[in-house]
Amino acid sequence: MIKVGIIGSTGYAGQELVRILLQHKEAEIVWYGSRSYIDKKYASIFGNLFELVDASCMDDNIDELADKVDVIFTATPQGLCASLIKEEILSKVKMIDLSADFRIKDVDTYEKWYGIQHKSPSYIKEAVYGLCEVNREKIKQARLVANPGCYPTCSFLSIYPLVKEGLLDTNTIIIDAKSGTSGAGRGSKVDNLYCEVNENIKAYGVAGHRHTPEIEEQLSYAAGETVMINFTPHLVPMNRGILVTAYASLKKQVSYEEVKEIYDSYYKKEKFVRVLEKDCYPQTRWVEGSNYVDVNFKIDERTNRIIMMGAMDNLVKGAAGQAVQNMNLLFGLPEEEGLELVPMFP
Amino acid sequence: MIKVGIIGSTGYAGQELVRILLQHKEAEIVWYGSRSYIDKKYASIFGNLFELVDASCMDDNIDELADKVDVIFTATPQGLCASLIKEEILSKVKMIDLSADFRIKDVDTYEKWYGIQHKSPSYIKEAVYGLCEVNREKIKQARLVANPGCYPTCSFLSIYPLVKEGLLDTNTIIIDAKSGTSGAGRGSKVDNLYCEVNENIKAYGVAGHRHTPEIEEQLSYAAGETVMINFTPHLVPMNRGILVTAYASLKKQVSYEEVKEIYDSYYKKEKFVRVLEKDCYPQTRWVEGSNYVDVNFKIDERTNRIIMMGAMDNLVKGAAGQAVQNMNLLFGLPEEEGLELVPMFP
Amino acid sequence: MIKVGIIGSTGYAGQELVRILLQHKEAEIVWYGSRSYIDKKYASIFGNLFELVDASCMDDNIDELADKVDVIFTATPQGLCASLIKEEILSKVKMIDLSADFRIKDVDTYEKWYGIQHKSPSYIKEAVYGLCEVNREKIKQARLVANPGCYPTCSFLSIYPLVKEGLLDTNTIIIDAKSGTSGAGRGSKVDNLYCEVNENIKAYGVAGHRHTPEIEEQLSYAAGETVMINFTPHLVPMNRGILVTAYASLKKQVSYEEVKEIYDSYYKKEKFVRVLEKDCYPQTRWVEGSNYVDVNFKIDERTNRIIMMGAMDNLVKGAAGQAVQNMNLLFGLPEEEGLELVPMFP
Amino acid sequence: MIKVGIIGSTGYAGQELVRILLQHKEAEIVWYGSRSYIDKKYASIFGNLFELVDASCMDDNIDELADKVDVIFTATPQGLCASLIKEEILSKVKMIDLSADFRIKDVDTYEKWYGIQHKSPSYIKEAVYGLCEVNREKIKQARLVANPGCYPTCSFLSIYPLVKEGLLDTNTIIIDAKSGTSGAGRGSKVDNLYCEVNENIKAYGVAGHRHTPEIEEQLSYAAGETVMINFTPHLVPMNRGILVTAYASLKKQVSYEEVKEIYDSYYKKEKFVRVLEKDCYPQTRWVEGSNYVDVNFKIDERTNRIIMMGAMDNLVKGAAGQAVQNMNLLFGLPEEEGLELVPMFP
Repeated sequence: MIKVGIIGSTGYAGQELVRILLQHKEAEIVWYGSRSYIDKKYASIFGNLFELVDASCMDDNIDELADKVDVIFTATPQGLCASLIKEEILSKVKMIDLSADFRIKDVDTYEKWYGIQHKSPSYIKEAVYGLCEVNREKIKQARLVANPGCYPTCSFLSIYPLVKEGLLDTNTIIIDAKSGTSGAGRGSKVDNLYCEVNENIKAYGVAGHRHTPEIEEQLSYAAGETVMINFTPHLVPMNRGILVTAYASLKKQVSYEEVKEIYDSYYKKEKFVRVLEKDCYPQTRWVEGSNYVDVNFKIDERTNRIIMMGAMDNLVKGAAGQAVQNMNLLFGLPEEEGLELVPMFP
Repeated sequence: MIKVGIIGSTGYAGQELVRILLQHKEAEIVWYGSRSYIDKKYASIFGNLFELVDASCMDDNIDELADKVDVIFTATPQGLCASLIKEEILSKVKMIDLSADFRIKDVDTYEKWYGIQHKSPSYIKEAVYGLCEVNREKIKQARLVANPGCYPTCSFLSIYPLVKEGLLDTNTIIIDAKSGTSGAGRGSKVDNLYCEVNENIKAYGVAGHRHTPEIEEQLSYAAGETVMINFTPHLVPMNRGILVTAYASLKKQVSYEEVKEIYDSYYKKEKFVRVLEKDCYPQTRWVEGSNYVDVNFKIDERTNRIIMMGAMDNLVKGAAGQAVQNMNLLFGLPEEEGLELVPMFP
Repeated sequence: MIKVGIIGSTGYAGQELVRILLQHKEAEIVWYGSRSYIDKKYASIFGNLFELVDASCMDDNIDELADKVDVIFTATPQGLCASLIKEEILSKVKMIDLSADFRIKDVDTYEKWYGIQHKSPSYIKEAVYGLCEVNREKIKQARLVANPGCYPTCSFLSIYPLVKEGLLDTNTIIIDAKSGTSGAGRGSKVDNLYCEVNENIKAYGVAGHRHTPEIEEQLSYAAGETVMINFTPHLVPMNRGILVTAYASLKKQVSYEEVKEIYDSYYKKEKFVRVLEKDCYPQTRWVEGSNYVDVNFKIDERTNRIIMMGAMDNLVKGAAGQAVQNMNLLFGLPEEEGLELVPMFP
Repeated sequence: MIKVGIIGSTGYAGQELVRILLQHKEAEIVWYGSRSYIDKKYASIFGNLFELVDASCMDDNIDELADKVDVIFTATPQGLCASLIKEEILSKVKMIDLSADFRIKDVDTYEKWYGIQHKSPSYIKEAVYGLCEVNREKIKQARLVANPGCYPTCSFLSIYPLVKEGLLDTNTIIIDAKSGTSGAGRGSKVDNLYCEVNENIKAYGVAGHRHTPEIEEQLSYAAGETVMINFTPHLVPMNRGILVTAYASLKKQVSYEEVKEIYDSYYKKEKFVRVLEKDCYPQTRWVEGSNYVDVNFKIDERTNRIIMMGAMDNLVKGAAGQAVQNMNLLFGLPEEEGLELVPMFP
């Protein structure tokens, strides 16, 4: 039984980790960290877990925690994980960081886009970017996993095969993304109040969202050249879900069948990526509560562009689910353990 | 492995049965019945089940079906199950009817409130009302289970202990219920369009809703006398969930502790009924996707009334989950098999 | 042109006052008070008013304000208006208080239910309860109007005629109310975040909500005797709207026609109360954005109870609209001036 | 007083026409056409209009109608207006068609994208495309106005100035649009049920939506060359609102100030187009219920692209409001008559 500690267990991603791990046969949560709710019963905050979780919230004592658990998840704001990490900890436990601290290899890029100083840049190189479908083998050997961002996961998986295969003019990639509101976190801001979000859609972080360099870095690895994109996220009045609509010019004429074959060749064996059937486009409702990413594409012969789409639950494959998938890899478990969640509709 | 057939598998309750049974270790669906979608791939209708269900929809051939399965769920409009049932079928398979056909023991009451003629009244007596928490032992012996209605399940479980213990003036019971829109079904009616339901709340079936006699019958058994109530359902702009707020005058002065003890004594051992802590009231979000009913109460000393509350997922404990709970009882399985679903939030 | 000052103009009720007054021919807002946003452009907070309002927010300087305007609206938390009021102010301007400070005549009751000390009890007697349909003539003469609460307005108008006519057993009145989330205010609380409210319904303030004594006081005047009720509010995932479902036992048998005639006799001439047609029940969507209260009833002969229902926009008739209606009365304008807003659907 | 007839008055656009015209001082609706509800009280369908509209619905008798009114609005599915129009009608009344029948000048393009035969192609040339901000003078002289589509209005106005000024590489225009569900109409389709739309976002009509050629045609006029675009609409779980996010490569380096000046020069005098302030992006909530289109842009120096955004109420500026704006022009009234609706929030 893997002993698990969670730092930041009372945010939406933290709570989703709890929901998933409670249904995981090989893991047991022994530390519910939450600075904001120290000593408060976890189930008094999240009533869904009444009679399922008896524990109270703990402060962030990383040293004590490292002695008690096998793996630590940090589901915390940027900067916290980087400030906690040290050799002493990593020598005892595996760490899976759900924040952006170790996702970007270039520390200057990180500091520029996030506007904070990186507290432990020496660990950036060691950290493995935890996109299981791409870095599976590396993850298995890692001590520190940088769990990918929600938008990057969905964006990257939607276009990765075609970038890798060199089908796209990478100078033309535009990603228009839409996210449910749990992605905005559980902080008490006026902007996230029900009446401010409901009956509204807006773009935000236009040409400046922090997930941009993360997506670009991963696409650049796939393309073998520097890729620069436009990425525009939007806030949608729903709880969960990310939909990505990506556009790019095709380098040459290709048929539906050719492109479909490429997607299939990359994802056929991937349990958590579903390549949909022709003319059936991803919808967030079909993945809610599950670890699936649904992808598909449409070639527009008129403009010689391809529209690539992906849908995903931002809290599962975009956060807690992918983190558990990484944990499974780290501990030699079947990758899908605890993640065979059937999407819930409606 | 229990072989399962579902008649009406493309309604919301039918689809929820599929979602639950896919995660049930001892059951396998072999017949996805749906008159409206014959020969259509089930997963093309419910994209959440893509790569999880390969089957196509079948017509309602009860005789063929009875030869192939161990249990039939009918998740169909009123009247259908009553029109299908016959000795030949019941001698081969167990039946769990999610409609109201066999819930009400008095055929005149059924025909009056539902406005249709009962096609097989001779089976009403044999049918067991499938409220597991009350009729557990009878269900185990049954061939035909009448799965309780969504409102009745939540209403009844919220007030049952106090009625049974004789604490309430049963002439004063008023039940004000609120339901998510999946309760209205998947039929294409203007009234259920997004723009008609969203940003609105309304009462419906005022003083005439069909679940009234069902609640009254069960309460009457508990009270040992005829109980007549007011029941008013409301439609709420959300997908899932029923909240019941029930009012009654207390026959005598009682303390919080006394009432709490009663609730605990009835539900302590019931896995799927959670008696909340003091001043913590049921909310539909805390039970979403699960088989739980959360209940609690508040005594108003000023008016000598007690307010009893219950929250439940109408598609799970109010339909498909309870049906599977009944199936587990019918086949001697642990009652919670396939139903240990952690509520999903947000 | 009436010069208007608003204290608390950046809450939802305050902003709705602005929206309504901008369409009012005889009023002009000259003071947008908001402690939280001093010197900030009003239209930068509420983008709907871009190019319509050029002013910036002002601090709460009541003395300066009183010299500049003819009427002050206080759309502020409980206690503030009572702390500001004094003879010097009232001798210069009319005041319409949207908080509860002057609604309840018994200061002990106020202090007990609101848990704060009343700062200017001497003005309670003078203040007129601004329910125009009942106190029209008194309002015309007032200096200080206590604008009714949202739940009390809808609750009271739904049952008033029958209480006044002595048809109801006033010991049996139970009010089950449902409100949209704008009623919870614009404060940045976790409980009001989108993901906490969406896909959920809950009761709150059970047997202890502050609007209870306000409703009871007004019903007691109508009944000519002390009335004690149960009042249970619920939070509904929608922006606007209150629906009241009220229950009471009838003192004698009455027909639909008799009750309809009573309602009509009270409300026929009331522009803002619409008595719906038989079997057509109030829905919040039909009053959204308008000053209407829609009411209707259903007699349940089985239980000898009557179910009375009312729907209203909590920000209009339940707050800003009614406040403007009061302003019109105070200044001798047609009562409907600026309030002939057609409900917006969908 | 302009006498108005509406064919298709019981769809969402038709009902919005009624809401707006009821608040219009110079117009009076004398014919509420609706094939589906003949002889039914209009206010029994739309309860918001109870006590405001007494009329019943009429069949589509265009000849009788033409004798009774000054202007006919057709808020009907594609093909109906084209099947009704003839010289005899146009000689008597003005016609404003809210469908697509007369928007596209090339009949082959219309027939290809809409998949139906055009019944009166001879009137296409005469029809004026009713985008007031562009065709104001032509509209004043027209007999037949083709009211623009919702997506085209918002898309075009968001990018028009830059296309007209030759700043954009028109080969690179990509429009990613998001719409509330009222845009899907009031037909009773499973796809538009509450539970199918709620908690979901999806793309539809990818690379094939019918509004594509309409947008392209108008952009081509502005550009003075043939423009071909990618247009992808998405369905958002909200009632009203369209948000457009458009991308294009800049032909040359330009500063924020230069682009702002261009937008201002085109829209400064346009009452219904608001160019927002720097870094303040359009949101649908700020235009709800009003005739405004809010637009803004962001230059991305990294990719040399410009992101242009627009928000609009699809039922007002995107349908009924623009139609009334056209009516005002046709009859020599102030363009804003009846349209000075303050956006409603929340």
